[in-house]
Amino acid sequence: MGARQTLLETAHGTLETPFFMPIATRGAVKTLSSFDVEELGSPIILANAYHLWLRPGLEVLKSFGGLHQFMNWPGAILTDSGGFQVFSLEGLRKLSDEGVMFQSHIDGAKMFLTPEACMDIQRVIGSDICMVLDVCSKLPATQEELLEASRRTTDWARRSKKRFDETREGSINPQAKLFGIVQGGTNIKLREQSARELMEIGFDGYAIGGLSVGESHQDACQMLDHLDPILPKDKPRYFMGGAQPHEIVEYVKRGIDMFDCVLPTRNARHGQLYRFVHDDLSKPDFYETIHITNEKWKFSKTPLLTKERMGEVSLGYLRHLFTVDEMLGYRLATIINVKFYLELMRKIRLTIHDS
Amino acid sequence: MGARQTLLETAHGTLETPFFMPIATRGAVKTLSSFDVEELGSPIILANAYHLWLRPGLEVLKSFGGLHQFMNWPGAILTDSGGFQVFSLEGLRKLSDEGVMFQSHIDGAKMFLTPEACMDIQRVIGSDICMVLDVCSKLPATQEELLEASRRTTDWARRSKKRFDETREGSINPQAKLFGIVQGGTNIKLREQSARELMEIGFDGYAIGGLSVGESHQDACQMLDHLDPILPKDKPRYFMGGAQPHEIVEYVKRGIDMFDCVLPTRNARHGQLYRFVHDDLSKPDFYETIHITNEKWKFSKTPLLTKERMGEVSLGYLRHLFTVDEMLGYRLATIINVKFYLELMRKIRLTIHDS
Repeated sequence: MGARQTLLETAHGTLETPFFMPIATRGAVKTLSSFDVEELGSPIILANAYHLWLRPGLEVLKSFGGLHQFMNWPGAILTDSGGFQVFSLEGLRKLSDEGVMFQSHIDGAKMFLTPEACMDIQRVIGSDICMVLDVCSKLPATQEELLEASRRTTDWARRSKKRFDETREGSINPQAKLFGIVQGGTNIKLREQSARELMEIGFDGYAIGGLSVGESHQDACQMLDHLDPILPKDKPRYFMGGAQPHEIVEYVKRGIDMFDCVLPTRNARHGQLYRFVHDDLSKPDFYETIHITNEKWKFSKTPLLTKERMGEVSLGYLRHLFTVDEMLGYRLATIINVKFYLELMRKIRLTIHDS
Repeated sequence: MGARQTLLETAHGTLETPFFMPIATRGAVKTLSSFDVEELGSPIILANAYHLWLRPGLEVLKSFGGLHQFMNWPGAILTDSGGFQVFSLEGLRKLSDEGVMFQSHIDGAKMFLTPEACMDIQRVIGSDICMVLDVCSKLPATQEELLEASRRTTDWARRSKKRFDETREGSINPQAKLFGIVQGGTNIKLREQSARELMEIGFDGYAIGGLSVGESHQDACQMLDHLDPILPKDKPRYFMGGAQPHEIVEYVKRGIDMFDCVLPTRNARHGQLYRFVHDDLSKPDFYETIHITNEKWKFSKTPLLTKERMGEVSLGYLRHLFTVDEMLGYRLATIINVKFYLELMRKIRLTIHDS
């Protein structure tokens, strides 16, 4: 029980857990090139199967030999199935046991996504870590709706695993791993059942889905506390969805190994920067966020990143870039925030290692 | 007469002419950091005194010890006086012999710009090459208007030189140079008179202003042909305003040493990329522009920049970035286009050297 440190082997590098995955939904971490992400020291990025399926499309990805080649990215790639995106779509969306029918958010074309198709897409992408297609219930949901979503998620997970195993041979990344996704909302019984059913099918790792959707941090912690002794010790666990830095520390304590979060990149575009205040991660005030447009930084010569030449700027200059709306500002803020999350994970790994 | 190759000494490096200056109006080449511009190999950038005067303002620049420190830029800086920007402002703008009264485009505040103030601003910026404040006539203009603009330009040039000399001592960049600006529209007599009057005052270099404002390439060439034997051989000459690559080749032949142009950065943001077709610069078809969003690049694996790791992408991937509106696309296209202009100048220098 508790914080773990281990290694996750992929065809594109060995990853030390716990780690954070910068989000590259459409095949690029916003404002950053693959080279930039490599320079920042991230061994993995997270892309989205649904978005890449629509654009650039499978033909292009096939022709390039997968997303790694397309992006010129040497590290590992995890792909979200896109279930969350499909279920978030407004308008026509029809769910059946077979799969989910929906309209493309690009051109309104009718599309049909099944657990099997989702595996095929991720095989074309060549992901190192594939995610099953799960059913994301719209909250609030009745007990009946939650039960049906749970049943379907398990059924789809079984079909995903079958297709994944059948398509390993001849795929561009035969070492790829497949993760199941534990659902069940904040219902402890449903969560436990979901976890046990997925473990019976057997996955390379287990994601906790359906959290970080508005429930309290305490509820999320409670759920993880409950799942910790149930999930297999020797398989990586991935907390899906956003988490603030101090929440990540708490989730790591509860056995989580992998994180993604839109906050460092999204906040960067709004001029909100993360920075460390002190080194004691056990206190939630170990970091702060500053608003770069604040008048008080106008004359600040404080350097922001001293080790990365591509980010060597002062607070005052960065403030100026935001004030005059220069795109470079978003890029530099992104570099700063992504580096912060990567550095946070490095500090967490050191803490686990030393304890 | 004709193409020249020489060295221009500044406190921030020795520049080989002819050279191109990427535009960093507000203290940043759009989407690029100072480090990026350095990596691309540009020894100089062009900033704008008027824009920097308004934001971040002189207090901030003073506090940082000038624009070089503010931007963390080790190379040379030329500053446009901002005359062109002030004269382009809509609304209240009142010109007198003393200077020009106008409203800030940021907050509508009334501001008064004089030739002397313009020197003081550029001294605070710490520019390596300062430009005098000139009078840009609105075209079409009557003969009388052109004459008056010409008279004022010379008068202001004289006052600029005086103030510049008086403020050298104690300035942060005592090695700074001051350039006069030859005006006179497409009137050969006025141009010649403007040049002779400026030469009498004596400047470190001579800019040709008021071209690239809608006149034909032939007219511009004719003007340069006429000025070439008049302007001193041993002083650098700067063609102000945009020029397409094949036009730059023609202007170099007519004795021009320095260029700036908004096209590489602006076109980049519209997905228009420059690339070389062949090495014979004497033929105007030595380059082409391609539209990255064109369907035909969808599957293209053609690499775009092979020497710069920060720009190592394929046409197909860059097209995807533009299609899904990822900011990274603008950045990569800017890198490609700025590199093209820098490479063009390198080729031109080699050609002059070998001839």
